[in-house]
Amino acid sequence: MDGLLKELIEQCRQDTVNGKVASYIPALAQADPNALGIYILDRNGLHAQGGDSKVRFTIQSIVKPILLLQALMDNGEEFVRSRVGVESTGKPFDAINISEAMNQEILSEHINPMVNMGAIVMCTLIKGKNYKKRFERLLELTRTLANNPGIDVDEEVYRSEKATGNKNRALAFLMRSCGLLEGDVEEVLDCYFRACSIRVDCKDLARIAFVLANKGRDFAGNQLFPARYAHYVNAIMMTCGMYDGAGDFAVTVGVPAKSGVGGGIMAVVPGRMGIGIYSPALDKKGNSIAGIRILRKLSRQLELSIF
Amino acid sequence: MDGLLKELIEQCRQDTVNGKVASYIPALAQADPNALGIYILDRNGLHAQGGDSKVRFTIQSIVKPILLLQALMDNGEEFVRSRVGVESTGKPFDAINISEAMNQEILSEHINPMVNMGAIVMCTLIKGKNYKKRFERLLELTRTLANNPGIDVDEEVYRSEKATGNKNRALAFLMRSCGLLEGDVEEVLDCYFRACSIRVDCKDLARIAFVLANKGRDFAGNQLFPARYAHYVNAIMMTCGMYDGAGDFAVTVGVPAKSGVGGGIMAVVPGRMGIGIYSPALDKKGNSIAGIRILRKLSRQLELSIF
Amino acid sequence: MDGLLKELIEQCRQDTVNGKVASYIPALAQADPNALGIYILDRNGLHAQGGDSKVRFTIQSIVKPILLLQALMDNGEEFVRSRVGVESTGKPFDAINISEAMNQEILSEHINPMVNMGAIVMCTLIKGKNYKKRFERLLELTRTLANNPGIDVDEEVYRSEKATGNKNRALAFLMRSCGLLEGDVEEVLDCYFRACSIRVDCKDLARIAFVLANKGRDFAGNQLFPARYAHYVNAIMMTCGMYDGAGDFAVTVGVPAKSGVGGGIMAVVPGRMGIGIYSPALDKKGNSIAGIRILRKLSRQLELSIF
Amino acid sequence: MDGLLKELIEQCRQDTVNGKVASYIPALAQADPNALGIYILDRNGLHAQGGDSKVRFTIQSIVKPILLLQALMDNGEEFVRSRVGVESTGKPFDAINISEAMNQEILSEHINPMVNMGAIVMCTLIKGKNYKKRFERLLELTRTLANNPGIDVDEEVYRSEKATGNKNRALAFLMRSCGLLEGDVEEVLDCYFRACSIRVDCKDLARIAFVLANKGRDFAGNQLFPARYAHYVNAIMMTCGMYDGAGDFAVTVGVPAKSGVGGGIMAVVPGRMGIGIYSPALDKKGNSIAGIRILRKLSRQLELSIF
Repeated sequence: MDGLLKELIEQCRQDTVNGKVASYIPALAQADPNALGIYILDRNGLHAQGGDSKVRFTIQSIVKPILLLQALMDNGEEFVRSRVGVESTGKPFDAINISEAMNQEILSEHINPMVNMGAIVMCTLIKGKNYKKRFERLLELTRTLANNPGIDVDEEVYRSEKATGNKNRALAFLMRSCGLLEGDVEEVLDCYFRACSIRVDCKDLARIAFVLANKGRDFAGNQLFPARYAHYVNAIMMTCGMYDGAGDFAVTVGVPAKSGVGGGIMAVVPGRMGIGIYSPALDKKGNSIAGIRILRKLSRQLELSIF
Repeated sequence: MDGLLKELIEQCRQDTVNGKVASYIPALAQADPNALGIYILDRNGLHAQGGDSKVRFTIQSIVKPILLLQALMDNGEEFVRSRVGVESTGKPFDAINISEAMNQEILSEHINPMVNMGAIVMCTLIKGKNYKKRFERLLELTRTLANNPGIDVDEEVYRSEKATGNKNRALAFLMRSCGLLEGDVEEVLDCYFRACSIRVDCKDLARIAFVLANKGRDFAGNQLFPARYAHYVNAIMMTCGMYDGAGDFAVTVGVPAKSGVGGGIMAVVPGRMGIGIYSPALDKKGNSIAGIRILRKLSRQLELSIF
Repeated sequence: MDGLLKELIEQCRQDTVNGKVASYIPALAQADPNALGIYILDRNGLHAQGGDSKVRFTIQSIVKPILLLQALMDNGEEFVRSRVGVESTGKPFDAINISEAMNQEILSEHINPMVNMGAIVMCTLIKGKNYKKRFERLLELTRTLANNPGIDVDEEVYRSEKATGNKNRALAFLMRSCGLLEGDVEEVLDCYFRACSIRVDCKDLARIAFVLANKGRDFAGNQLFPARYAHYVNAIMMTCGMYDGAGDFAVTVGVPAKSGVGGGIMAVVPGRMGIGIYSPALDKKGNSIAGIRILRKLSRQLELSIF
Repeated sequence: MDGLLKELIEQCRQDTVNGKVASYIPALAQADPNALGIYILDRNGLHAQGGDSKVRFTIQSIVKPILLLQALMDNGEEFVRSRVGVESTGKPFDAINISEAMNQEILSEHINPMVNMGAIVMCTLIKGKNYKKRFERLLELTRTLANNPGIDVDEEVYRSEKATGNKNRALAFLMRSCGLLEGDVEEVLDCYFRACSIRVDCKDLARIAFVLANKGRDFAGNQLFPARYAHYVNAIMMTCGMYDGAGDFAVTVGVPAKSGVGGGIMAVVPGRMGIGIYSPALDKKGNSIAGIRILRKLSRQLELSIF
C-alpha cells in the first residue's frame, strides 16, 4: 500500500499547480502550495501513508461533521433535525436569501450542518455551562476520535478568523433575527472560530474517519457513539460535504467526505477505511485539487465506491 | 381644499380595517390602527390638513431620502453613486443573496439608498467627527427642511429598534465583509436606528416634501441644496420608494413618494406641492393602506401624476 | 435647436465605439455602429433633428408600450392590470424562476408589460378575429400614433426573429403551462415577432412619444386615447423601460423612455415633447450607448427631468 | 421475509391518507390512493413481495436513471458528463433561472440527469436513426433490465402527458435557445413523454434495481453494462433522486433511489438487493409517502444504509 500511495502522490502532486492556496488570512496563505500528503487506516489495522502526511494544518470545515456528531451525542437525532435541515442547498458555501419573508422554519430547512450557518447552530447545541466549556468538549471529542491528546488550536489562525469573520457574523445575526440562533452571537462565533482553528494532521483525519466508517467503534473496539449517528453524519457528508462539487465527487470517488479550505479532506469508506489528505492548493469550488485527484485514483484502484 | 380632504378622509378611513399596524416593537404596536391624517403645502402657500394630522409618529424609512440628501450634500452625486447603486432590487425590503461570490462591486450595484443596506451606507457617508455628530447633522437637516426645530427622537422606539435590529446587523456585517461598509458596525447602526426613530407629524413631512418638490428651495426662497440633488432623490423615490409596490404607485398615483412602517408617507409633487400622510395600518407590502388610497383619490382629483 | 442637436451629436457620436451592435440575427448585425440620429417634436410645433435621423430600423422592444396601449384601449386598465403586473422585475430582460411552485397569480405579478413575457401576453389581449387581424390593428395604431401610413414590417428581421426565437417560445410555453397565456403559442409569437419587426425612423418615434407626452392627444388635437392610459404607459416606462438601467436613467435623464435592441430610444417628456433616437451600438444592459448619452446632455440643457 | 413485508405494509398503509395522488392528468388521478406494494430481489435469489405488488403503473421519473444509463452506454461517461452536470440543483423539480445571461455552459452545469431538463437532454443522446428508433432502444433496455419483454407504454398516459406538457416544452425551448438541445423539440419531447409512460410493476423495478446494485450484472450473470456506469447512476440517484427530499432520504434510508409521480420508488442496495415499491399517494415533495415510510422501516430492520 505504501508503494501505491507513493506512486499516486508522484502522479498527483503536479495537479497542485492548477490550484490556489486560501489567502483570506495570512496564516493560511503561508502554506506550501505543492504539499500533498495522505494517511490510510483500514479495518485490518493497516496503516499506510505517503508524501507530506506529517504536516499539521487547521481543520477548518472538516470540523463540521464533528460539530454535528457532538450535537447528535448531546441532543439526539430528532432534536438536531428539528433545528437544522439536511438538504443540499445547491449553492456554493453558505448562500441564502435574506428577505423579510424569511422565517425560522424556512431558514432552518434551507441550511444543513455542512454549511456555515448550520455548523454555527451546532455550536449552540453542544452542552456546556458556557462557550469555553462547550468548545473544550468539542476539542476533547476530536482528540478521542483521533486518539491523539496532542491536538490543539492554532492560535494565530483563530485570531485571524475572529478578526476577519464578518461574513459569519452576518449569517449569525440573520439566524438570530428569526429566532434560529440563541445566545450571545460573539460567544457562539468565538466557539465556531476556535473549532475551525483546530490543528490536525493526515493521521488524525484518517483515525476520525475510521470511527465514522466503523459505525462509531474505534480501533480498540470501543463504541464511541451509536451507529445511527455515523449514518447521519456520513449521509450528509455524501450529499453536502464537498461544497458545490458534491455530485462530481459522488460520481468519481463515491464515498462520504468533507473538505476544508485549510487543504484537508477527510474521506470515510464505510466498513473499510478512514482516509486523511492534506494538499492546500484549492480548486474554484474550494476543495483540495490534488486531494480530489488522488482520491479518484485510489477509489478506482481499490474499488472504494459505495455505489 | 380642506373640504376635499375631509371628504377623502371620510371615504378612506374605513380602508384601515384591511391593514395591520407594525408590531415588531411594542411602541409601534400601540398606534391607533384607525388613524388617518394628511397635510398639504402647495407653492401658492396654501396649507390644508385633515384628520389626525397632528399625531406625531416615527419617521422610519422616510428618513432614507433625507439620509441620501445629506450624503449628496456632503459628498456630491458622483461619489454617492459610486458607493450605492440606483436600480430597483425587485425584492421586498432588503433581499439580497449572501454568497461567497458576492463582492463589493456586485453588492453595491444591487442595492439602492431606499433599502436598508443602502441607507446604512448613507450613514457612513455623512461627514462628522463621530457618529454622534453625524446624527446631529442629519437631525439638523431634517429640522431645517421641515422648518421645525422641535423635531426630536422617540427614545423608546430608538431603544427597541436597537435591541431588536439583528436583521440590520446581518446586513451591515455582510457589507462589512466585502468592504462596502467601513467603521464600527454598532456605531453605524446606532446612527441608523436613531435616524429611523426621528419623530415627525404630517406637516413636517409636507414641508420636507415641498423642498424636494421645489428644486431644493424652501418656502421662504432659500436654496437649501442644488436642484439636481432633488432630481436624484425624487427619481429614486419614484422607482424604489414604495417597497414592492413602487410600480402600482407610479401607475395609480404617479408622484415620487416614500413610506415608512410607522405609517407615514411623504409624497413629492414636483413643481407643485408637498404632502404628508399618517395612517399606521399597513398592507402586506408594508405601505400605509389608507394612505395609498387617499393619495390615489387625490391624484385623480387634482391631476397630480407627473406622467 | 437644430444647432444644439448638431453639437450634441458631435459630442456623443464617439461614444458609439464603446458599444456593440446586436448580433443575434444577421439583419441587425449589419447596422452602422457609428450611426446616431435624433428627432424632437415639441408642443409648440417645433421640429428639430440631427445626425442619422432618417435611417429606418426595427422598433424591437419599443413596440412594448404600443402593445400595452392597444391592450388598454381594447380591455381597459382593470382587466390588463389583472393579467400582468406593473412592478420592476429587478432582473435584466425577462428573468424568471421556472419552478413547479409557480402558478398563474405569482407569475403574473412578477412580470410587467415592458419585459418579453408581459408583452407576449399583451398580444393575446388585442381584439381581433385572428392573429393576422390583431397584428394589423397594432400596426394601424402605430401608423396613427406616428401619423405615418408608410410604416411597415421588415420581413427579413421578422423571419430571423421567428427562426431564432426559442427563448421566447420557452417563455410562452411557461406561461401556457400555468394558464397565463391562451391560444396557439406559435400564432401568438408570430404576432409578437412581427410587432418587434415594425420599421420606424426617429421622426416616427418622436411623434408616438409626443402623443404619450400630450395625454393621448395628437398634434392636430385629436384625442386618440384617454389621458389615463398615457399615465399608465408612461409610469411603467419610467420604472421598467430601460431594462436593468431604469434607475440610472431616471436619475440622470428623468423622463419615461423605452429602448430597443435595434438601437432606438423613444423618450416622452410629459407636457412638453416627444423624442426619437437611433444609435445601434448598445451598452451591456442592451440600451443604445450614445442614445443615453445624448439624452443626458439634452435633459441637463433643457431641464427635461420631471423630478 | 414475506412475513416482515406483510407486517410493514400493515403498519405503513395508513400513512397513505396523509398523501395525495397526482392529478395533473386524469389517468393518474384514478389510482387507488390506499395502494401499497413492495417487491424485493436479493443476491441470494430470494424473491419477496407484499401488498399491491402486482399493480401496473407508469414509471414516470424512474425512467430517468434508465435514460441516463442508455446515454452512458451509447456515449460513455465523459461525453454525457460534458453535456449535463451532476450537482444537486437544490430546487424542487426543475427550477432554473431564465435570463439573457444564461448560456450553454452555465445551464448544463446547473442541471443533472434526475431533473426534467437533464432527462430531456438524455433523449437526444440515445443513438438511433430517428426518435421512434431511439425510444424503441430505451424500451428494449428497460425490458432487458427487468427481464420482462411484456413491458409496454400506457397510451392514455402518454397522450395526456403530451397534451399537457407545456412546462416541459418551456424547458426544452430554453435549452434549445442556448444550444444545449439539438433536433426538433416536439420529436425529442415525444420520446420523453413516451419514456415517462412506460408501464411497470414492483417486480420490474426490483429487477432493474438489482442490476444497478449488482454492478451491471443481471441475475443470470450477464454483464449488461460496465460496473462504472452503475456507480455513475447510483451516485446521482443518491444525491438527486428524491427531488427536494434527497437529504432526508439519505439520512433515514441511506440507499440510492428514484421516485416517480406515478407512485413508484426504485431503491438500489449496492451489493445486496433491488427493491420496487408502489404507493401513489404523494407527499408535498412529490415522493410516495407510504413508500418512503416502508423503506425507512426496512432499512432499519435489515441495516440497508450504505453509510
